[in-house]
Amino acid sequence: MLKYELVAQYIQQFIKENSFQAGDKLPNVESFKNKYEVSKSTVIKALEELEKNGIIFQTQGSGIYVRGNKRKGYMNLLISHGFKDEIENATVSYKVNKLEELIPSSNVREQLKLREDESVYFLERIIYVNKEILCKEISYFNKDIVLFLNKPIAEGSIFHYLENNLKVKIGFSDIYFQVDKLNEHEANILKLQEDDPCLRYEQIFYTTTGIPFDYSQLVYHYGNAQFYIPAHK
Amino acid sequence: MLKYELVAQYIQQFIKENSFQAGDKLPNVESFKNKYEVSKSTVIKALEELEKNGIIFQTQGSGIYVRGNKRKGYMNLLISHGFKDEIENATVSYKVNKLEELIPSSNVREQLKLREDESVYFLERIIYVNKEILCKEISYFNKDIVLFLNKPIAEGSIFHYLENNLKVKIGFSDIYFQVDKLNEHEANILKLQEDDPCLRYEQIFYTTTGIPFDYSQLVYHYGNAQFYIPAHK
Repeated sequence: MLKYELVAQYIQQFIKENSFQAGDKLPNVESFKNKYEVSKSTVIKALEELEKNGIIFQTQGSGIYVRGNKRKGYMNLLISHGFKDEIENATVSYKVNKLEELIPSSNVREQLKLREDESVYFLERIIYVNKEILCKEISYFNKDIVLFLNKPIAEGSIFHYLENNLKVKIGFSDIYFQVDKLNEHEANILKLQEDDPCLRYEQIFYTTTGIPFDYSQLVYHYGNAQFYIPAHK
Repeated sequence: MLKYELVAQYIQQFIKENSFQAGDKLPNVESFKNKYEVSKSTVIKALEELEKNGIIFQTQGSGIYVRGNKRKGYMNLLISHGFKDEIENATVSYKVNKLEELIPSSNVREQLKLREDESVYFLERIIYVNKEILCKEISYFNKDIVLFLNKPIAEGSIFHYLENNLKVKIGFSDIYFQVDKLNEHEANILKLQEDDPCLRYEQIFYTTTGIPFDYSQLVYHYGNAQFYIPAHK
């Protein structure tokens, strides 16, 4: 974890402990700088992070304010750390249905910018939140970045493993989604009916240097998934 | 439009004209500074804006790169300017079903942080993209900010009117959504069947000083709406 990320955590904790509400004014940059004994630029980066995540807002020349309490049980789509951190106070678990190496289809190859003969890790999981089915997930991993993957790793947070063990620097991601009807196979897996609604969700993750390393296709259970996005002008 | 927004537009145009592709390196800050005759901090703000919108990515110490072509026809949810700018090269039109002043329910009052006796503008519209139904929209406007609204205004981009005529400074928004089935009334409006899938989407817009001024509830047509989010770590 980088220093500014730690300071962002401290400030978030500080907001919680003092029960600050939406619209409440926070101490200024100088005061956080002294409180946590870090540089001014570290505080500024931490505040940018908190602003991006919808925790605070800053007004030019006027100060730093709390953005307010979010609805419980919604996943913040802009925190792309994997599910564990996206849903507060929830227990997330994974069931691995399949993990193998294969030569992917041309669509997958294109998304991950692979050569024709390159194989990928193919992973199929069911993800549960508090023991309810959240979604079915299929992922393709670029083996140049995801050097190794096995079932025990895939039964936990892969992103935690990538960052901490493989030292992958996760940069950004493209998310595409639309609403659709479930086919029979998907309905069976999600324990729903054919033609029930679902969210079809695709995400391509890139390293900080722009290399795509994970292309995932998710089908969300319409009764168990709720989403939140903190947007900015 | 602020100066950095203009520079962001110039740079985006520059990327287009030179047919830059994903991963291509762009000129550095200094060179954009000279090209557009603006300050370094204006270029930096413009680049931050383009990074937020998924157009470029920046790597520490290494440079500015193009993030690549997005799929066509997807709405970028992080550009909360109203629909016109979210869908590139599309014709957006609005049909106003109802516009009136009323005392809202307690839920709406809470979202907009209103007093008990405060009335709001209530607006119901159908939004079309290239003459296809995109969604049904219900909006409640805080009259302290949205001082005046009539049918001709509501038949166009309200956000354009708010920014340019009323000089409202739009700051940020909270987006909540989930997948559901259509009820009979909604199905009639969207020209679909009861129990067909839909995206239920709520958005609360705030001024730069944190005052909520628009609470909207949208129901998206599952066949005509596709969404894109450029996410960051």
